[in-house]
Amino acid sequence: MNSENFGLSEKIVSSSYVRQGLQARRGHEQLIRVLLEQGKCPEEAWDESTIELFLNELAVMDSNNFLGNCGVGEREGRVASSLVARRHYRLIHGIGRSGDIAAVQPKAAGSSLLNKIANSVVLDVLKFTGVRSASSCFVVPMATGMSLTLCFLTLRHRRPEARYILWPRIDQKSCFKSMATAGFEPVVIENVLEGDELRTNLQEVERKIEELGAKNILCVHSTTSCFAPRVPDRLEELAVLCAKHDIPHIVNNAYGVQSSKCMHLIQQGARVGRIDAFVQSLDKNFMVPVGGAIIAGFDEVFIKEISQIYPGRASASPSLDVLITLLSLGASGYKKLLSERKELYGHLAQELKALAERHGERLLHTPHNPISLAMSLNCLQAHSDKAVTQLGSMLFTRQVSGARVIPLGVEQTVSGHTFHGFMSHTDAYQCPYLNVASAIGITKDDVTLCMKRLEKCLKSLGKEVPVEKNDSTSPREGLEDQTVP
Amino acid sequence: MNSENFGLSEKIVSSSYVRQGLQARRGHEQLIRVLLEQGKCPEEAWDESTIELFLNELAVMDSNNFLGNCGVGEREGRVASSLVARRHYRLIHGIGRSGDIAAVQPKAAGSSLLNKIANSVVLDVLKFTGVRSASSCFVVPMATGMSLTLCFLTLRHRRPEARYILWPRIDQKSCFKSMATAGFEPVVIENVLEGDELRTNLQEVERKIEELGAKNILCVHSTTSCFAPRVPDRLEELAVLCAKHDIPHIVNNAYGVQSSKCMHLIQQGARVGRIDAFVQSLDKNFMVPVGGAIIAGFDEVFIKEISQIYPGRASASPSLDVLITLLSLGASGYKKLLSERKELYGHLAQELKALAERHGERLLHTPHNPISLAMSLNCLQAHSDKAVTQLGSMLFTRQVSGARVIPLGVEQTVSGHTFHGFMSHTDAYQCPYLNVASAIGITKDDVTLCMKRLEKCLKSLGKEVPVEKNDSTSPREGLEDQTVP
Amino acid sequence: MNSENFGLSEKIVSSSYVRQGLQARRGHEQLIRVLLEQGKCPEEAWDESTIELFLNELAVMDSNNFLGNCGVGEREGRVASSLVARRHYRLIHGIGRSGDIAAVQPKAAGSSLLNKIANSVVLDVLKFTGVRSASSCFVVPMATGMSLTLCFLTLRHRRPEARYILWPRIDQKSCFKSMATAGFEPVVIENVLEGDELRTNLQEVERKIEELGAKNILCVHSTTSCFAPRVPDRLEELAVLCAKHDIPHIVNNAYGVQSSKCMHLIQQGARVGRIDAFVQSLDKNFMVPVGGAIIAGFDEVFIKEISQIYPGRASASPSLDVLITLLSLGASGYKKLLSERKELYGHLAQELKALAERHGERLLHTPHNPISLAMSLNCLQAHSDKAVTQLGSMLFTRQVSGARVIPLGVEQTVSGHTFHGFMSHTDAYQCPYLNVASAIGITKDDVTLCMKRLEKCLKSLGKEVPVEKNDSTSPREGLEDQTVP
Amino acid sequence: MNSENFGLSEKIVSSSYVRQGLQARRGHEQLIRVLLEQGKCPEEAWDESTIELFLNELAVMDSNNFLGNCGVGEREGRVASSLVARRHYRLIHGIGRSGDIAAVQPKAAGSSLLNKIANSVVLDVLKFTGVRSASSCFVVPMATGMSLTLCFLTLRHRRPEARYILWPRIDQKSCFKSMATAGFEPVVIENVLEGDELRTNLQEVERKIEELGAKNILCVHSTTSCFAPRVPDRLEELAVLCAKHDIPHIVNNAYGVQSSKCMHLIQQGARVGRIDAFVQSLDKNFMVPVGGAIIAGFDEVFIKEISQIYPGRASASPSLDVLITLLSLGASGYKKLLSERKELYGHLAQELKALAERHGERLLHTPHNPISLAMSLNCLQAHSDKAVTQLGSMLFTRQVSGARVIPLGVEQTVSGHTFHGFMSHTDAYQCPYLNVASAIGITKDDVTLCMKRLEKCLKSLGKEVPVEKNDSTSPREGLEDQTVP
Repeated sequence: MNSENFGLSEKIVSSSYVRQGLQARRGHEQLIRVLLEQGKCPEEAWDESTIELFLNELAVMDSNNFLGNCGVGEREGRVASSLVARRHYRLIHGIGRSGDIAAVQPKAAGSSLLNKIANSVVLDVLKFTGVRSASSCFVVPMATGMSLTLCFLTLRHRRPEARYILWPRIDQKSCFKSMATAGFEPVVIENVLEGDELRTNLQEVERKIEELGAKNILCVHSTTSCFAPRVPDRLEELAVLCAKHDIPHIVNNAYGVQSSKCMHLIQQGARVGRIDAFVQSLDKNFMVPVGGAIIAGFDEVFIKEISQIYPGRASASPSLDVLITLLSLGASGYKKLLSERKELYGHLAQELKALAERHGERLLHTPHNPISLAMSLNCLQAHSDKAVTQLGSMLFTRQVSGARVIPLGVEQTVSGHTFHGFMSHTDAYQCPYLNVASAIGITKDDVTLCMKRLEKCLKSLGKEVPVEKNDSTSPREGLEDQTVP
Repeated sequence: MNSENFGLSEKIVSSSYVRQGLQARRGHEQLIRVLLEQGKCPEEAWDESTIELFLNELAVMDSNNFLGNCGVGEREGRVASSLVARRHYRLIHGIGRSGDIAAVQPKAAGSSLLNKIANSVVLDVLKFTGVRSASSCFVVPMATGMSLTLCFLTLRHRRPEARYILWPRIDQKSCFKSMATAGFEPVVIENVLEGDELRTNLQEVERKIEELGAKNILCVHSTTSCFAPRVPDRLEELAVLCAKHDIPHIVNNAYGVQSSKCMHLIQQGARVGRIDAFVQSLDKNFMVPVGGAIIAGFDEVFIKEISQIYPGRASASPSLDVLITLLSLGASGYKKLLSERKELYGHLAQELKALAERHGERLLHTPHNPISLAMSLNCLQAHSDKAVTQLGSMLFTRQVSGARVIPLGVEQTVSGHTFHGFMSHTDAYQCPYLNVASAIGITKDDVTLCMKRLEKCLKSLGKEVPVEKNDSTSPREGLEDQTVP
Repeated sequence: MNSENFGLSEKIVSSSYVRQGLQARRGHEQLIRVLLEQGKCPEEAWDESTIELFLNELAVMDSNNFLGNCGVGEREGRVASSLVARRHYRLIHGIGRSGDIAAVQPKAAGSSLLNKIANSVVLDVLKFTGVRSASSCFVVPMATGMSLTLCFLTLRHRRPEARYILWPRIDQKSCFKSMATAGFEPVVIENVLEGDELRTNLQEVERKIEELGAKNILCVHSTTSCFAPRVPDRLEELAVLCAKHDIPHIVNNAYGVQSSKCMHLIQQGARVGRIDAFVQSLDKNFMVPVGGAIIAGFDEVFIKEISQIYPGRASASPSLDVLITLLSLGASGYKKLLSERKELYGHLAQELKALAERHGERLLHTPHNPISLAMSLNCLQAHSDKAVTQLGSMLFTRQVSGARVIPLGVEQTVSGHTFHGFMSHTDAYQCPYLNVASAIGITKDDVTLCMKRLEKCLKSLGKEVPVEKNDSTSPREGLEDQTVP
Repeated sequence: MNSENFGLSEKIVSSSYVRQGLQARRGHEQLIRVLLEQGKCPEEAWDESTIELFLNELAVMDSNNFLGNCGVGEREGRVASSLVARRHYRLIHGIGRSGDIAAVQPKAAGSSLLNKIANSVVLDVLKFTGVRSASSCFVVPMATGMSLTLCFLTLRHRRPEARYILWPRIDQKSCFKSMATAGFEPVVIENVLEGDELRTNLQEVERKIEELGAKNILCVHSTTSCFAPRVPDRLEELAVLCAKHDIPHIVNNAYGVQSSKCMHLIQQGARVGRIDAFVQSLDKNFMVPVGGAIIAGFDEVFIKEISQIYPGRASASPSLDVLITLLSLGASGYKKLLSERKELYGHLAQELKALAERHGERLLHTPHNPISLAMSLNCLQAHSDKAVTQLGSMLFTRQVSGARVIPLGVEQTVSGHTFHGFMSHTDAYQCPYLNVASAIGITKDDVTLCMKRLEKCLKSLGKEVPVEKNDSTSPREGLEDQTVP
């Protein structure tokens, strides 16, 4: 309410109470002021009432909510269902314009503000989680894979001759597809085994650059967060190589924002060498629904180029989700989630180690992977060929989600390329294994329950190959079911 | 509640009342049954209570809502903010898998069902609005432009040699960008003037095919819905040409679902010639928030190829919105909206004609355009050079949204290509003009208000060039503001 | 947002768009201003967005939503469940103070405003629906019966000696109980039959006054809206009698706001005689959930006395519901509902008349009852004793709600008083009958369906006494089920 | 979804996933089953998704949500505003029937179930918080005071001759009014001072019984929770007295559910003597919005009598709120809140004691009061007459809510009775003082902030009588503002 309306209210209820209400309103406005002024994630969490007040204020600024508007265009933000209108807080116009997904819309000042602020708040988070020198980013309503594709398509205009993308192998379909879809030929760099870990083969990368010629290479496409025993790529060295050969470098930082190690690698890579853009998932890092990513970088011009290449407007839903989430957590709440995750990673490792030893297995030694863990399944494999895939299926049925077993010798063709030893990031890993991860939002209960159920399954499988009642899934199907990425 | 719980309820309240409640529940379940069985848009609208019951049921089937779930993966559908969880009906896992945006997710049976049903219901709508032989479609959480890009990227794998896309000119940035972003070279086919209408230059298309060679052409990219005086492309003839030369044909049907004419053109084109896919906006045709499109076609294999090229999962938000909307309208409600739109198109044309004549202008004769209308602005132009752009700015300030003025001689560079006479679909149209449209959801009030305000603006401009108080926008800015696409 | 925040927004998105957003915000504020200034039901409906903006603004003014509040009292408006907080728009403090249910709360300026405005808007509605000279009213979160009790308890303080309440019989339990609960002895005035109608026996009222002595009579308790063949009491004559004998007069106007006839009777009664208060249901007149009533009158002092006798605070829920409803309808929307109801009353009468004649029955002639209709069930009764109650049960099972059959000879004891011919408002009405009503919100479909199902039931009962499959309800139970008041 | 619909779903998405979804659904249903079967507050909290699923299921059973219903009654549960429908989960019919607020409604099986279950769950809570032998209770949508009135009105029918209610003084307006409103004459029993505490004068109670005659006394009306230095009444002794003289005994347990001491007193009183009913606030004990109370007792017949005396249906809102809240907390969550409250009571006492000593005041010694504390304001009073009320006003302005100052010598007339030393529960307490309380939901931050602001105010007042800028409240007004009950 404006001051006139507060004045009128004083005639209806005691003016001293109204004045206190007015003062209280200023408290909310003050929070909004700081947000608009600084564009940063507020240190302390906002109340739901402040968040909804703010969103309502934004909605009022969009033309579809103008009381006196008349619409004679082909896109007027009309909504047929009030359920739909309400769930979007009546912010209907999406984000961007046909020329630029980050542009301001004349018809939708509120949605435009939302978009700008979401991008700004997210950039602040990327900075305080470790990539201090990031200079620009934007939320894009596409998954990580498609966002990587967008980066590659943008680079094409800069390097029209280039055909190849150098890619240290990571066995996740959408990573490979992101390159194929953009029309490039991925050059798979097989990882090298160091202890239990699979790490970047830098020599092979350099050799390929020389073999193919730097100008024919669109970019190096590296990865941070991944499943053990693979570990984050040697970003610093790759970045130095890219700088040296003047090759762009795109980093898939899928769920790396939650790990200070991954973020540090990017920061260092950019400091000592070249990183053009790094892409991360919204849902995996910020506990929002699937469907958004952040494209970030160190050069505003290049990030702007990417935003301008997206043809058309886009959904504001992911921006809205991440903004609500970060306001409702505050920087302090988000940091608390990160430190809890880190702590539970240690706890999970400890528990898994103990469990492994009880069953004659071992926790693979993968200290460079800050999120994912792997436990060998040698004995299980020895016991029966089918037991490994059977374990995956059993865990799925017992509502252990996200655990996955990696048998030896799986073949998989993705966009025409056949991978041997698929899921294990190498042609033939030394043993079959089980993956579990400590990701943001995990609780101690998750760990406890998982260990308990895993223990039960292993015991049951150790005795005999069980025939799951009512379980018609073939081993392969079981594998499918539990394959999470 | 299951039958056991109904049984228990009978001990608490009178069993005859509980039995009536149970019977009532069956009414809702019956509607859901028919939907699942037939996969069609229900003829009659569903109550909000049935819709929410259905969505809650779907949510319960997703692993993030399992009461006993423990999650040790990197993507567990956790949500930090209850505001966010609620607005997505706790459907968090999005749609698709890394291998295919239309695939079923093991972790999310409910979201998967949602996705399948949304696609199926939308296909039904495409059929009953005119493209009866459409065989397959899917909702993609990207705007029309990006969806077209996805089609072109898919075709690249089929036609690796092709570099060109033949494109009858339509002055809308994202159309052009959709091709450039995919890495192709658009070949602009200038329109020909027939009466007041701008129509497809078929001779030039054929000439270009011969000049460039069919195998070097990725596809023909035609358009249905557009701003007058351009009219929908001659789809039948283009489709025949494509069939003859074995060239794929992608149709941009942006907001054409709402027009039986546009849908008929596609149906006929596919019948007599070749159409590989047609793409339409969700928001412009179904009154949902910006951010989704439908990619549809006549060959399931090709449509499947497109869905498989999208790398990664995607937001379920557009699917959810369109499903809620269609269930809450029913086929009958949607058809009613379409017939109201058509009727108001006639009304708008009549009103605009009368107004034009009062001001010495005329309604351009564009009978092939079923949605958009154009009124000449010759007198205004004669009165003052700036008056035309001034009119656009004035309408914007007066909350007439979607109306746009097209001055002569605008130059615009999009993705490196410079267009003369931009916005008018031709280098030099015969006169400046104003566009208005009768799009789905328009009301009689919209028309009345628009005519009233337009009348006032024209009168005011007729007297003198007004200096808008508090209006600092330059003419060019005014133009920007009112440019809607 | 305040002007400072709008200023900051202009640095983020184009200032001309922000200024338009600011202007749009003023549109909403303007509506709120008029509401606060005039305290009337707005003529035109408010958008949901304006309503929610307004409610959010009110909530911000309550101390439980102060960002810096610290609470060390025993009632701090804390809410444990966010589902609960949200559904009350975070307005938690209820209405009133321990001294007065209409008083302003220091801790809750927003809730207090809500309460005052709801009362003011409702008063406006009472005026424009016919009781033009009403001077004061308040919403009370109790049903009509309990609200009547409150009126009687208030009168006790004015007339400490009085023991009796004169009450023209109406067979609705809570009417009778409202007097007994207050501790008074109802004196039942039997109605007189005029044609088919049951009307107030004025002679008997006057006789009783003389018999008992005016000073021993707390008040006359009359009724407007009721089931046919009873018709509204002769309010004018009763009011004149009350004035003459200096006896208070309380009117039960349960669902009479929806009928101009009932409202006119009250207006006239107050003009020519004495009416101290009239009480009406919120849910039956305003299509809100059950649980609220309006106590209104012509003397502010007396109405204030009633509000002051309620010990303690009260739920704001009914005030909130009726305010939201009236803002979302607007006076014009409410009047439209009333005129539709009236029209459908005519339609229902016509249909019922035709149906009655087809079955050898007749529509009772009750022109003074503007809402309820009655159809004789003589033939049915002749056919079988049980058929009449069977009809009630059959209609219930067939989801015809609100229709009720009145067999002859039902006895019922309420608060110690035994009524003969209960439900028919007289000891022995001339025939059994069926009641249906045209109440606010009824649709043509309701009428059509009801007639269709009634026709079927009558046909089926006309042939033989059906044994309803799965229907174990005894006739008496069937009666219970369908007894609506 | 029923099994048929699950079956159909298996044709759309993989049957193993659907079967897992079905299993997950059973998890929710299992929780509902246990609730229906046992009628107890679940030990563990329910997810919001289970709660909403349950409420949706209930709503589906009410006739206003029947898809095929036709309504021809005067109360059909129609709702004009979708905002209103939604916030009540489409449960519109309220609770009870005209004959009994606890009765089952034929039209609303779902609402009836809700009502029954809410009452049952609340009874369970009363038991496990200390009144183990309570046998019956119901939620009533009225504040505590009006609920007490209802109890007194019910007793009138049992004791038609009785005129007096014996009432150990507690200075809270609605307590006194609850008796006056019911039409009885409160006999005020002045408290006796024991140390700093004000306690029940048992001798005086007995003397009054003898003086007035037991049969002329409607009941003894005692109180548990209250502001220090008053402490809970000597319930055991009063109960014994009541049993001895065969006088009913109604206990005002306003916010006593949160204190094991208050609950223990009631349990003991009922064990050794007589307690007919005890009444408690919903909002003060269960953190729900204002407007509901629980009437409970040890004799089902009497409690049923009270529920039957309420004339008419009532709002389901308070029942809905308390049920949602208790399901979302679980018994364990509620107990946790209680133990936190108790702990913070100790903390608050300690802090207040230290602060008092710093300012030459003292914490009054009131060990029998488990919730409220009092600090003397002797020095402040000595400093200036106005300073005490000024302190109240200052705390209000500084957003310390619920703290209240009690100056000496306040007179107040309530329902015709004049109280001396009002607010202090005695004619002339030994000193002015300040009250603070540790009530359910209080946080450590509340305590810290309160102490900090209080310190500041006392310091500022200690120096000079400040003239509050912009503070026009007179001392008396300041007192009004901060008077919380």
